[in-house]
Amino acid sequence: MRAIATDPAARGLDDDAAVLEIGNETLVLTQDTMVEGVHALSSQDPADIAWKLVAVNLSDLAAKGAAPVGLLLSHALGKDDERFLAGLREAIERFDTPLLGGDTVSMPQGAPRSWTLTAIGRATHTPVPSRSGAQAGDAIYVTGPLGAAMMGFEKLREGTGADSTSYRRPLPQLSEGRALAPIVTAMMDISDGLLLDAWRMGAASGATLAIDSTAVPIAAPENRRSDAMRWGDDYELLFTAPNEAKLPCEVHRIGTVEAGEVPLKLDGEEYAGPGGLGYQH
Amino acid sequence: MRAIATDPAARGLDDDAAVLEIGNETLVLTQDTMVEGVHALSSQDPADIAWKLVAVNLSDLAAKGAAPVGLLLSHALGKDDERFLAGLREAIERFDTPLLGGDTVSMPQGAPRSWTLTAIGRATHTPVPSRSGAQAGDAIYVTGPLGAAMMGFEKLREGTGADSTSYRRPLPQLSEGRALAPIVTAMMDISDGLLLDAWRMGAASGATLAIDSTAVPIAAPENRRSDAMRWGDDYELLFTAPNEAKLPCEVHRIGTVEAGEVPLKLDGEEYAGPGGLGYQH
Repeated sequence: MRAIATDPAARGLDDDAAVLEIGNETLVLTQDTMVEGVHALSSQDPADIAWKLVAVNLSDLAAKGAAPVGLLLSHALGKDDERFLAGLREAIERFDTPLLGGDTVSMPQGAPRSWTLTAIGRATHTPVPSRSGAQAGDAIYVTGPLGAAMMGFEKLREGTGADSTSYRRPLPQLSEGRALAPIVTAMMDISDGLLLDAWRMGAASGATLAIDSTAVPIAAPENRRSDAMRWGDDYELLFTAPNEAKLPCEVHRIGTVEAGEVPLKLDGEEYAGPGGLGYQH
Repeated sequence: MRAIATDPAARGLDDDAAVLEIGNETLVLTQDTMVEGVHALSSQDPADIAWKLVAVNLSDLAAKGAAPVGLLLSHALGKDDERFLAGLREAIERFDTPLLGGDTVSMPQGAPRSWTLTAIGRATHTPVPSRSGAQAGDAIYVTGPLGAAMMGFEKLREGTGADSTSYRRPLPQLSEGRALAPIVTAMMDISDGLLLDAWRMGAASGATLAIDSTAVPIAAPENRRSDAMRWGDDYELLFTAPNEAKLPCEVHRIGTVEAGEVPLKLDGEEYAGPGGLGYQH
């Protein structure tokens, strides 16, 4: 779910979140929309949709090292509102973030519903990490394995009742993001697949993210490694840090930033464009 | 466009806007959604829809005496994006409020689009005015005439090319809201019609708003007075203030707050429920 970059009137636009200095605080604001049938299987439990909507917004805050302070929800009314509210309540309790307000709307009969959530966070470290700060010589890390959401999605689609939690109930890396914020040179959450998001970080930083695919931790069978690096929805954090930096949590080194024009190099192969790297909205 | 009141997990919910203390500032946050075919004629210029979306959110800030600091937009992509962005840009410039970020989504083919805007404001006076503070003995005021949007809507619908600006391009009463915030006992914007919104203010305050219909300024023919008091979209401010208060801008006194259980009295007739008073979403 991409930030708006089409409007030249946009100011202060920074990655997937807006950063706003106000009084003696730095706020981080994110807004994500999910559309029935586009961002969620239409057969999916609305409780899972609500959870995911909260999780993806909080994941954007996590990548900024921000602590959530509240949520605003625009909710399209429909037949399963009780389930949606149940999932919302679970997420609100789990992530200890209050629903401050929002709006409810009725959609025309038969129209797919959409939900928009705004998360408001408070920066715990300034400058707030962005995706554009990767420097040649930095090490590249991820906070956890990739591919778990893909495996969960496939189980859910098969409908065998096998555990699909990792797809349905992603967990934003909030404490990791806060711990890492003072150390990283660049950070973002992996929402659209490791390779595509790494390409974006490289492009934003004007450097080459050189990744060793065998070093990437995956939560999928070895023959799905390539897919696991291209599938999204895991919401682990991707970050770069000086080679010598002492890191405050368990992470996985997957490569090194190199000087160069090409945003991504995978096992030595250069990717000038984002084609074929992951899921593009 | 109503705030969410269905979720018991909601905390800090206050009228049409959320109030959030952060650092040494008080933020006011609003979020409104417009749905194609529901909140806008489907034939309407998307530039007008964008303008209105900004205006209705800023109107919620105006009612809180808040100064806008930025906007987040969730934009459903469609065929007329250029016009939508043109209207957005006009509103952003007119109200001097930056677009900080947001999200763009693609809707399924043929689905009605919806747009959600979040406005972030900074309170200029605390406590922030709410709709629940009207006291018996207070005078009741509106900032301007009602019915202009109704007349504009009818002209637009007739398609004769007559001036429909007042419906298409509402103006939030930002400077009036800021000037009035330190003086009012209760304040809200009139989005759903004077009588319905006055009923809500009475209900929230536990008092009776006694309104004299002949004192209500209208921007419509005299034979449409009743409609003008029931039609929404004018975005004037409704407020109560102590009888003796000196007011900082030109306003119109329309009645007096009385002690009582019934939220609204119009020309002596009591309205216990909101039925027949205006437009309910």
